[in-house]
Amino acid sequence: MNLSGTHIIGFEEIKNSSTFTVRNPATGVVLEGEFSNGGAEDVERAAQLAERDFDAYRNMPLNKRADFLETIAEEILALGEALLERTMAETGLPQARLQGERGRTTGQLKLFAQVVREGSFIDARIDTAIPDRQPLPKPDVRLMQISLGPTAVFGASNFPLAFSVAGGDTASALAAGCPVIVKGHPAHPGASELVGRAIQSAAKKCNMPEGVFSLVQGNSIEVGQALVKHPFIKAVAFTGSFRGGKALFDLAAARPEPIPVYAEMGSTNPVFILPSALKKESVASGLVDSLTLGVGQFCTNPGIVFGLQGETFDKFSNVAADFLKQKPVGTMLHAGIKSAYEAGLDALTGVTGVEVIAGDLKTDGACLGNPVLLKTNAQTFLKNARLEEEVFGPSSLLIACESKEQILEIAKSLTGHLTATIHGTKEELVEYQELITILERKVGRIIFNGFPTGVEVCHSMNHGGPFPATTDSRTTSVGTAAIKRFLRPVCYQNFPQEALPKALKNENDAKIWRLVDGNIGQASV
Amino acid sequence: MNLSGTHIIGFEEIKNSSTFTVRNPATGVVLEGEFSNGGAEDVERAAQLAERDFDAYRNMPLNKRADFLETIAEEILALGEALLERTMAETGLPQARLQGERGRTTGQLKLFAQVVREGSFIDARIDTAIPDRQPLPKPDVRLMQISLGPTAVFGASNFPLAFSVAGGDTASALAAGCPVIVKGHPAHPGASELVGRAIQSAAKKCNMPEGVFSLVQGNSIEVGQALVKHPFIKAVAFTGSFRGGKALFDLAAARPEPIPVYAEMGSTNPVFILPSALKKESVASGLVDSLTLGVGQFCTNPGIVFGLQGETFDKFSNVAADFLKQKPVGTMLHAGIKSAYEAGLDALTGVTGVEVIAGDLKTDGACLGNPVLLKTNAQTFLKNARLEEEVFGPSSLLIACESKEQILEIAKSLTGHLTATIHGTKEELVEYQELITILERKVGRIIFNGFPTGVEVCHSMNHGGPFPATTDSRTTSVGTAAIKRFLRPVCYQNFPQEALPKALKNENDAKIWRLVDGNIGQASV
Repeated sequence: MNLSGTHIIGFEEIKNSSTFTVRNPATGVVLEGEFSNGGAEDVERAAQLAERDFDAYRNMPLNKRADFLETIAEEILALGEALLERTMAETGLPQARLQGERGRTTGQLKLFAQVVREGSFIDARIDTAIPDRQPLPKPDVRLMQISLGPTAVFGASNFPLAFSVAGGDTASALAAGCPVIVKGHPAHPGASELVGRAIQSAAKKCNMPEGVFSLVQGNSIEVGQALVKHPFIKAVAFTGSFRGGKALFDLAAARPEPIPVYAEMGSTNPVFILPSALKKESVASGLVDSLTLGVGQFCTNPGIVFGLQGETFDKFSNVAADFLKQKPVGTMLHAGIKSAYEAGLDALTGVTGVEVIAGDLKTDGACLGNPVLLKTNAQTFLKNARLEEEVFGPSSLLIACESKEQILEIAKSLTGHLTATIHGTKEELVEYQELITILERKVGRIIFNGFPTGVEVCHSMNHGGPFPATTDSRTTSVGTAAIKRFLRPVCYQNFPQEALPKALKNENDAKIWRLVDGNIGQASV
Repeated sequence: MNLSGTHIIGFEEIKNSSTFTVRNPATGVVLEGEFSNGGAEDVERAAQLAERDFDAYRNMPLNKRADFLETIAEEILALGEALLERTMAETGLPQARLQGERGRTTGQLKLFAQVVREGSFIDARIDTAIPDRQPLPKPDVRLMQISLGPTAVFGASNFPLAFSVAGGDTASALAAGCPVIVKGHPAHPGASELVGRAIQSAAKKCNMPEGVFSLVQGNSIEVGQALVKHPFIKAVAFTGSFRGGKALFDLAAARPEPIPVYAEMGSTNPVFILPSALKKESVASGLVDSLTLGVGQFCTNPGIVFGLQGETFDKFSNVAADFLKQKPVGTMLHAGIKSAYEAGLDALTGVTGVEVIAGDLKTDGACLGNPVLLKTNAQTFLKNARLEEEVFGPSSLLIACESKEQILEIAKSLTGHLTATIHGTKEELVEYQELITILERKVGRIIFNGFPTGVEVCHSMNHGGPFPATTDSRTTSVGTAAIKRFLRPVCYQNFPQEALPKALKNENDAKIWRLVDGNIGQASV
């Protein structure tokens, strides 16, 4: 392994005298590499480059932008085993998971390349002139989406590849024509550096302007704050804790020029198990598989599970508890995550009426996280808002409800979450239509007879939801619709053909879908 | 005229003991009507109704929603001359202008009805399942936009019909399926009441749920604050001053659950007159017509005008000054606007290097506003940020620049505006391509050989722009794209056909445009 520990600022590598290191969470051993601890001057340098080269990047032909995204994917693959090994060492995540995550990372870069090449994402609209309209002539008016501006992306600890340096936020911002400055997550600086170099290499190979990408490393809050406050930065994307995301949102709203913050801050992902499904062992085992997947370190981890009280519910709980007891203790991402997990379990079990039905609340290992299943009743849940808050790790709380009405009452009382899940028959789903109506307002994605973990990267995905799950329920952080986050409309009135952007000229060589005089089509005007 | 002075809360009319009145700005006479001065309890009542009926409204068939919008337009027309007379009396705006504005108001309601009926605005996306995909099956995932929630709309003083009670914000929010609570502008409470009753009547005729619309009147800041802070409110739309809009934005960002604020806060709308156009009398007269239109009380009023210094510029200035001197003094909307206008002129003329070339700075009439033309040079403009701030009224500042490079330097130095305008030949426009590149980042709409006043309501319009022109450059407040402001995505995973929303079922009877497995089309799946 050859880690320089530098920031990657455009085509340069910049070192600071202040450095930090990182430990292997499985062994506690300090890993190779002294990583520069960035500050405001590193942010300044990256922001200057991003601003300088923004116009050059956003005005490149779309196929060159697409080539760049695909080349990033190739360069990541070219890192080979070295990337997986370093990421395993930094995160404790198993190889198979990281192989899958790498596939997702390169897959989403390629999917965004397709979206960029296809071109309809710019939402081109043309209203042709009617010079003799009475009482006033109608002007020729044309609209398209252009790139929002240099974008700050914060790497997430739990997706060291798919939501870090070249993750979904970076891919969607670059696809939208925005230069990206990543603040690497301090728990995996080695993986960040390797991926950052892959992007840098792709930028050089594709003759991109230097400022298209920078990576600033650091383990202080200040470097991230400097990034969000920088006047050249026009949008922020973040995946992490509520505290972190909300702090960035507040900072951005208080800027002289407020900017959008797309913070995905986690969720407890309520699961509703309707009567027929409570009888199914496969649902109990599926639930336990989902809640323990990746040592529970997913934003979509199913943390609260509702069902109608009674013998069937008790049996379901026992079956789930038995499955859980077979699950191994896992290595969590870092010591901070583990202590937060145990503190979260303490808070849950500190509530009178909550009992542990499987799992130990503590482990000795510095980064080990035990799967835990807890149980309570609806009254206790309704009285204690704390029980709805995310406990990041492999635990779920089963909640026995008295009636369908009480289930609906609880659903209505929920705050915003990323997902909600319903298990049952089609007939039960129709019977519980009101539950769907309630959940549409509470979450970004509703899953039937499945589990919330495992987020498909596709055109129809929504990974988002009402506050406090995110700071902007109008957008998604996974899937191709994420490109919309980094765009804004510009209208051209009465422009001659030669001065119009390509997508708005009469001639539609690229056959992009456009709205012309109110009609959707691919024809030229 | 029969004005009750009440709020319109759903189907009820509610009175307060505290009231306010309004004067005719042209005569100074207090007009008929004692208007209830709303408070938190009125907001509470309206918000409870809106929340109670939100699901019923958003889940109505789209053609019923469209019928409602069209019926509002009919009910407004049915108010006949009484509406125009009262609005004239309250605003000082001439009849022809208000007839035109009424046409725009009913026209945009009907245009949104078309958009709703057509149905593609929900951006339906379907990714079909691939059960045997390796290593993991691909689930069936479907996405659509749903209504964001009860929306607060603030009436604007300068568009008593088109951007007030049944204006663009109300039309787009209702079109998106969101109940609306309007805070009426205190300068035209009579017009607000009449239009509010038209909406109430349309809601009854169309069997809408009661909470779909309320109008709260009031002349205190507190009632608007209570509305923005109410937990049931999920979005805010505002047109007005920077101070007012920014205060609402800050309030909404500081809520326990932050919500989007779409505040259109005005602009100085830079105009660039390239050398060939400086020679044209028609450009000088067109500029003066645009800046004095509606006594300059438009967000798109051309407030700063740039050209290359020299004889041609001086001659252009003189010609424009002569045209301006022929323009009559006009009645402004209310005494507050007039005093703000004169204070703004004082601030401009207080800058050393700014000279008045036509018009008087003061008038005796309580609400009269004089057309004024001022002149300075680029150095003075660059040194005094104050000169870029909006002066709401019929004035413009002509700015003599030394070179093309200085024009580009000035363009780069600009903050966000709603529009920018370029006058010249096609060849000059190509020569000034860099100016377009710069302006794309500064404004929401670029006009060639036209004037910024007169905003076409169509699919391709963008009335918005970077901060401080608005608080959200990603959206427009005029035109059909405004419907996107009040929507958010929800994803349905693995849902049986019978439980899916109509637009996401395999069968596409309504022939709405959808993205199915990455392909745009109208076919069924």
